[in-house]
Order: sequence, then structure tokens, then C-alpha cells
Amino acid sequence: MPHRSGTYCCFRICVPNEAGIDARSPIGVFDSGVGGLTVLAALCARLPRERFVYLGDTARLPYGTKSPDTVVRYALQAADALVRRGVKALVIACNTASAVALPAMAERYGSLPLLGVVEPGAAAAAAATRSGQIAVIGTEATVRGGAYQRAICRRRPDAQIRAVACQLFVALAEEGWTDGPVARASAERYLSGLCDTSGTSGFVADTLVLGCTHFPMLRATIREVIGEHVCLVDSAATTAEATQGLLQAQGLLAPAAPTGARVQLLATDGVERFALVGTRFLGRPIAPAEVELVDL
Amino acid sequence: MPHRSGTYCCFRICVPNEAGIDARSPIGVFDSGVGGLTVLAALCARLPRERFVYLGDTARLPYGTKSPDTVVRYALQAADALVRRGVKALVIACNTASAVALPAMAERYGSLPLLGVVEPGAAAAAAATRSGQIAVIGTEATVRGGAYQRAICRRRPDAQIRAVACQLFVALAEEGWTDGPVARASAERYLSGLCDTSGTSGFVADTLVLGCTHFPMLRATIREVIGEHVCLVDSAATTAEATQGLLQAQGLLAPAAPTGARVQLLATDGVERFALVGTRFLGRPIAPAEVELVDL
Repeated sequence: MPHRSGTYCCFRICVPNEAGIDARSPIGVFDSGVGGLTVLAALCARLPRERFVYLGDTARLPYGTKSPDTVVRYALQAADALVRRGVKALVIACNTASAVALPAMAERYGSLPLLGVVEPGAAAAAAATRSGQIAVIGTEATVRGGAYQRAICRRRPDAQIRAVACQLFVALAEEGWTDGPVARASAERYLSGLCDTSGTSGFVADTLVLGCTHFPMLRATIREVIGEHVCLVDSAATTAEATQGLLQAQGLLAPAAPTGARVQLLATDGVERFALVGTRFLGRPIAPAEVELVDL
Repeated sequence: MPHRSGTYCCFRICVPNEAGIDARSPIGVFDSGVGGLTVLAALCARLPRERFVYLGDTARLPYGTKSPDTVVRYALQAADALVRRGVKALVIACNTASAVALPAMAERYGSLPLLGVVEPGAAAAAAATRSGQIAVIGTEATVRGGAYQRAICRRRPDAQIRAVACQLFVALAEEGWTDGPVARASAERYLSGLCDTSGTSGFVADTLVLGCTHFPMLRATIREVIGEHVCLVDSAATTAEATQGLLQAQGLLAPAAPTGARVQLLATDGVERFALVGTRFLGRPIAPAEVELVDL
């Protein structure tokens, strides 16, 4: 029997060991678009024996401007599609969905290992900072929603956090302009005063969280601008690390490298653009024929 | 009786002089978001006696990445909402909807004066060029769709047209970074070689069409980069001019300045962001309380 929970209708659905799912099953990765491919790239690098099914809900992006109810509904539909493909774990590589839809997913999928990008990034930042002064950069929606700020403060209540929306970084990453004068000037404009030891504001972050899946694409430029003394927390890398830990703890790490394709790519619209832009985010060529169009 | 036309269900609905609509009725302006506010600003400047109802479908933007069927369906829903408010004319201040949904609208609204942004911009470019070499800049979807290119060629079959997607200009306009080093470096990167008389490609546009409602915000920076010798076609200004002509021809120009508010603003989501970002596009402060949230 379904029961109502909040505003979404909640059914418990199949979880590992309930439907022939085991350590050899793939890991599901979900994002609203192509940004999560930076998380997929980090997962592929850290977990070379695993297979992945990635779903980008390109028809309905961006999630960041939608109401929480709508984000929960869309995220559950996308996650359902991945669960139906027999994934052994779910990685929510979308900041908005991580911040808003994880509780609903945890309720819906029961014991299925489930991970968002916010908590691993926040944990890494809280562990890395010495001064307690942490900067978080993300999209407008992520910064306004405050999920990183809350997750860091739960771990380190004395932390001073400044969050800055760097909306243009998303467009720069999608355009492939990740270095050069435009990226550099943008980074200077957004980040000046955040980590500057010669500043007079009294706030000098020693840790900067890349709180958007697009931002690891601009890592080198951001590093140039903030300097070597700042710890850069890349939530793609921290999420991959946390996924490894979670699978290990549950005995779900793949026993051997798979035969055949390691990555299956699904999108809800715009297969050509997904392949074109996604190529930059995944760090290897994607052919349009590799991307399966799915209807949620 | 509704009849099926293409993939949308087509009803004829109320038009001027059929439901108490006359020259004193407002003009409806529709866009997928805030970009069309540049068109509204141009309309307000050119038609000081008119009242306007502007609807931004912020819940469902961007239209540019959606399928034509979906764009037609969404655009008709939005236009219906404006027609129900008794508008005497409809201006489609959205390039994607102009390119895709105008025929469906013409069929649905019969004799209601109806205008998109593509045709006035194309007409102005075809009239302005001396060399026949025209550059069009727009979003990825507008450039790929080719509506400007076709509309210019219908008027001037010998025209040589280069279209360049300047996706970052959208983000720059929304961020309010319309001048300064980031905007300048972006404009140089996108526009180099389009209008350069010292180039070797043989293509030197003497006319540049701003084929996106966001781009008039960057007009000064674009002008700096392309030089004074290039004719800049601003489709916001050309659409306002064409609207004036159309209303005049049909005897629908307002006889006197209205009493009370001249502009009514409607959005389908994110009233706060609409007010914040829209303020820059409209060129005057918008208070969130001024924006009515509507459900389509």
C-alpha cells in the first residue's frame, strides 16, 4: 500500500538482494543534466571495477529554479528509472536534488545505498579547515537553499561560512571556456575577497567548496585565482570517495572489472547536445549513439 | 468544436471586437523568462500611451532546449492566459516561440494582431545591409533552428549569413555583467572575425542582428568590439516599431495615456528572482509584490 509522505506518494520499491541485485550490479548516477558527469568521471577513476548507469534529466533542467515539491517529484521519477534498471546504489550527482529529495528517496528505496553530493563535500570541508573560515561556491539555488552551510555547521558549529553564487561558471563550463581571459576575469570577480590574506574584512577562507557539479571543470582557473594555500574541496571527488566507503561497508564493491561497456548514458532530451557538452564534462568523447533517450 | 492541427488541439478563441476589446485594451507580451523585458522596455519607450501585460513562463524555461511540439503547447498555454486577460494584440518576445509557435497562434487567435521578434529583426537586417553580408548572434537553439537565416534569405536571397551562438551572453545579462573585462573578453571571443575589415576570410558583416532578447543588455560592449561601421539590429527595438505599425494599420493604437499602472507583470515561478533579474532587463526597479504568480 502506498502511503502519503509530505507531498509525494511513497511506495517502497525493490532494493538490493530483493531483485537479483548484487555486487556486480551497476551504480546509478542521477543529475538534472550533464554537470553530474564530473561526478561520474570521479567515480570511474576511483572505482575502476564498477559499472555505471547515468541519467541526465535534460528535458526538465534546470532543477535549481523549481519548487521543492517539483524537484522531489522529478528526482523520484528519475531515480525510479535507475532502480528499475537494477542498480545496487544511487548517487545523486545534483546539488538541488541532493539538498531537497534525499529524505524522500531514503524512504522510498529503503536499504538501497544512497548518496548525495552535499554531505560528502561538507564533511570534507569541515575536516579540512584549520581556521574554521570556509567559502562555498555554487549556483544561485544552492547558495540560497543553504544546504552546504547547514551540513558544514552540523559538523563544525563554530565555522564561519561565506557562500557565493557563481552562476556564470555554469555557462563557462558548458561553453568549454574553462581557462583563458573570460574564465580568469570571472573567477577574479567572484572570488576576490574570499581567500585573500591581504584583505581587511577579517574573513580569509582556508577552504573553498566547489558546490556545483560544473565547477570542477574550472578547477585550474579557480586555483590560480585563490592561490595554493587554500584547500579546494571538489564534491565530485569527495562523493566518489564516500561512494567507495559506503559500498565497501555493505559488501557491495564489484569483485572484478566488468566485461563490456562500463558506462551506460541516459538522457530525457537533446541527445546530440548531451554528447557534445557531456564530452567535456566526462573527459572522454561521447558519441550521440551512445546516449539512450528515455521518457520518464 | 476543437479540431486537431498538427500536434496541438486548436480552438478558436476570443479576438478583438469580439469580447469588449478595443484600442484601450492592453498589449500582451510573452516570453519564456525575463529576456523579453528588453522588448517590453522598447515597447514602453515607443508606445507611451499603451498598457501592457507581460507573462514570463519562468517555471518552464528554457524553451530553447525543448522539442517543437512542447514549445507550441507551452506557448499556446501562455498566450491563452494573456488572451483571457483581454489583450488587443500579442507580442511573442521569445525567439524560440517566435520561430516555432507563431503559425499555431495565428490559427488559434484568428484576427488578433500577432507579432514575433524574428521577422522584424530579419526585415531590419535585410533593409540595412549594403554588402549583403549579415551576422546573426543568438542562443544555441535560435542559431541551430535557422529562423533568422531563413527570414533574412526570404527578403534578400543573395545574402551571406553567418550565425554564431553566444550562449554566455545570456548568463552575463542575467548576472548583470554587461560591461567590464568579462563581457569585453567574451564579446571579443565570440565576435572576432565576423565584422573585421582587416580579416582574410572574405566575410565582413556590415550588419549584426542581436537575435536574442538578452543581448540588447550587452549592446555597448558589443558595439565597442565590432566598431562603429557595423549596423546593429536590435530585435527589441525593431519589434516595438513593427508593433506600432501593426496597431496603427488596424486602428488599435491607444487614444490617450492610461490612468494607473501601465505594466502588469506575470510569472509562472520565482517571483523574487523575476523581480531581481527583471529589474536590469526592464531598466526600472521591479518589486516582487508587483509580479503576479500565475499557474498555466
